[in-house]
Amino acid sequence: MKIILDAMGGDNAPQSTVEGAVLAARELGAEVILVGRESDILACLDRAQSSDVTDKLEVVNAPDVIDMCDSATSVTKEKKDSSLAVGLRMLGEGKGDALVSGGNTGAVLVGSTMYVKRIRGIRRAALAPIIPTGKGGSLLIDCGANVECTPEYLLQFAYMGSYYFEKQMHRADPTIGLLNNGAEESKGTPVLRETYALLKKAHEAGRINFVGNIEGRDVAFGAADIVLCDGFTGNVLLKTYEGVGMYFVGEMKKMFKKSAFSKLAALMVKSSLMEFKQKLDYKEVGGAPLLGISKPVIKAHGSSDAHAVKSAIRQAMEYADSHIIESIVENIEHMTLEPKAQ
Amino acid sequence: MKIILDAMGGDNAPQSTVEGAVLAARELGAEVILVGRESDILACLDRAQSSDVTDKLEVVNAPDVIDMCDSATSVTKEKKDSSLAVGLRMLGEGKGDALVSGGNTGAVLVGSTMYVKRIRGIRRAALAPIIPTGKGGSLLIDCGANVECTPEYLLQFAYMGSYYFEKQMHRADPTIGLLNNGAEESKGTPVLRETYALLKKAHEAGRINFVGNIEGRDVAFGAADIVLCDGFTGNVLLKTYEGVGMYFVGEMKKMFKKSAFSKLAALMVKSSLMEFKQKLDYKEVGGAPLLGISKPVIKAHGSSDAHAVKSAIRQAMEYADSHIIESIVENIEHMTLEPKAQ
Repeated sequence: MKIILDAMGGDNAPQSTVEGAVLAARELGAEVILVGRESDILACLDRAQSSDVTDKLEVVNAPDVIDMCDSATSVTKEKKDSSLAVGLRMLGEGKGDALVSGGNTGAVLVGSTMYVKRIRGIRRAALAPIIPTGKGGSLLIDCGANVECTPEYLLQFAYMGSYYFEKQMHRADPTIGLLNNGAEESKGTPVLRETYALLKKAHEAGRINFVGNIEGRDVAFGAADIVLCDGFTGNVLLKTYEGVGMYFVGEMKKMFKKSAFSKLAALMVKSSLMEFKQKLDYKEVGGAPLLGISKPVIKAHGSSDAHAVKSAIRQAMEYADSHIIESIVENIEHMTLEPKAQ
Repeated sequence: MKIILDAMGGDNAPQSTVEGAVLAARELGAEVILVGRESDILACLDRAQSSDVTDKLEVVNAPDVIDMCDSATSVTKEKKDSSLAVGLRMLGEGKGDALVSGGNTGAVLVGSTMYVKRIRGIRRAALAPIIPTGKGGSLLIDCGANVECTPEYLLQFAYMGSYYFEKQMHRADPTIGLLNNGAEESKGTPVLRETYALLKKAHEAGRINFVGNIEGRDVAFGAADIVLCDGFTGNVLLKTYEGVGMYFVGEMKKMFKKSAFSKLAALMVKSSLMEFKQKLDYKEVGGAPLLGISKPVIKAHGSSDAHAVKSAIRQAMEYADSHIIESIVENIEHMTLEPKAQ
């Protein structure tokens, strides 16, 4: 199995991506194709003292780089020779089994759709990170790819999220909760009410495990394995989660720094503190799969360090090894609605 | 000044509401009209040993009670003789200066609009609680009254939130942030992009202090004094905030209970822990004003205890004493859009 890595994508690239690839090759036996500016990559490989894994790493030159300030469509227009565009074309052509990029999210979305294509029948691809919860983690789908969604998009996200969670998190029959402003079936916008009805029908047919509407306050306690919402709401939820988390960690630090006593207190609970921080750490989780694309694409966090890149490569290997995409293809008839009569 | 209190509204009513009214009369010199089942209220007053403040408390009988499971419209239909309906009619008729209710939120919204009426020109009333942040607190508007909003509603919320925050929080020229899925002007739904343009125009005219789009992760750090969004998004944000907060507090408790060492550590930082918990405590804040109604209405938290009811009464007194509603009336021309040509 070969993982294509956008070596230029991310705040700390290519240093972090190259080091991550070396770690993945060494610790996971991964075969990685590093796509990007060849001379830069080779210099980083040299610094990373990677001679023991040379046979597992391949470098493919791509002269251009997509920045965070480039438009999403640059990947198919001005920057067709960027590491991301070259890598995605290679994935589309079968020259690798999965792709990892920590670059511009919009460009990853557009490039994946254009060069790798969506699964036939899937209307939109969705970004689906794992967020930490009291029960170990839930999949948030969509977290930002689609600002506005139709009931059909959301129904498809429910199925795709469910297949992904089951295979990657090894939990059978995962629960799906529709994020809403109340538990009652009548809550939310017309789109959400229609989605509720579709999910209920799929649940009654035994195809998914829909547990009804869930509220923002239930998410952190792991009320559902799959938290289903449009990309706008998912983005607000994810970032609020991050923000409140960072705020709390900051307040705790301040609390522990106040006096000699509290510094001593911090030492006493140090291991618990570390464990707690780790729960909130995206570096352990890797990245977010772009579900709905016909081959595995993982969007790593922009600020990924080598360890996070390695986690994302492991996640890509597991994704490529699972049969998630096949499950989606086999069940596509249940996820598509008849076009409405005009 | 007289505050009308829906004595039957809330999980712990009428015990908590009566005790809260006694505290408010005793500590704040408040005059309170308790509306609800007279015999129940009198029994609670008796238990509360309130003889020192008898002259400040008045009881008005209302035989019916709206429960949490009643529909929002019951306040104007089946339950016209409920404590909430009677209290709101009294407010509309000028028999009190403000109203506090910890009851059914939907019924408070519907009843306020029907019996007290919106300010002329205001399209929708909005619920606007203060949420705790690193900078002391921000006003979240709307947090659930209006699932879907037009740009005009949001523009009006921005003005109303701004006037309220300035007067009640004593901070001049409060900043307004539009909650969005990115900082760029082009982000979000068409409604949000149109709202952005309206806010920018109002800012350039020197009428409000609009600081642009803000993201979920910025909220906890106090990026804006007013966090502006539709009621659906506000509800998700508020409940996620609460959920993550409760989760953290729970994790901290677990951490401190692990061993004798960590219990000792907890003792060492006890005062900081209390301070931290207090920051997150809605009981200190009181309730959420229903902005846009022609008289002050405060929605208290359903689980308010006596202390929280007292805080909500204080908040109602301050609201009635301010000139927030007059400011809205005086500036209504800047908040209303010309009807679009069809």
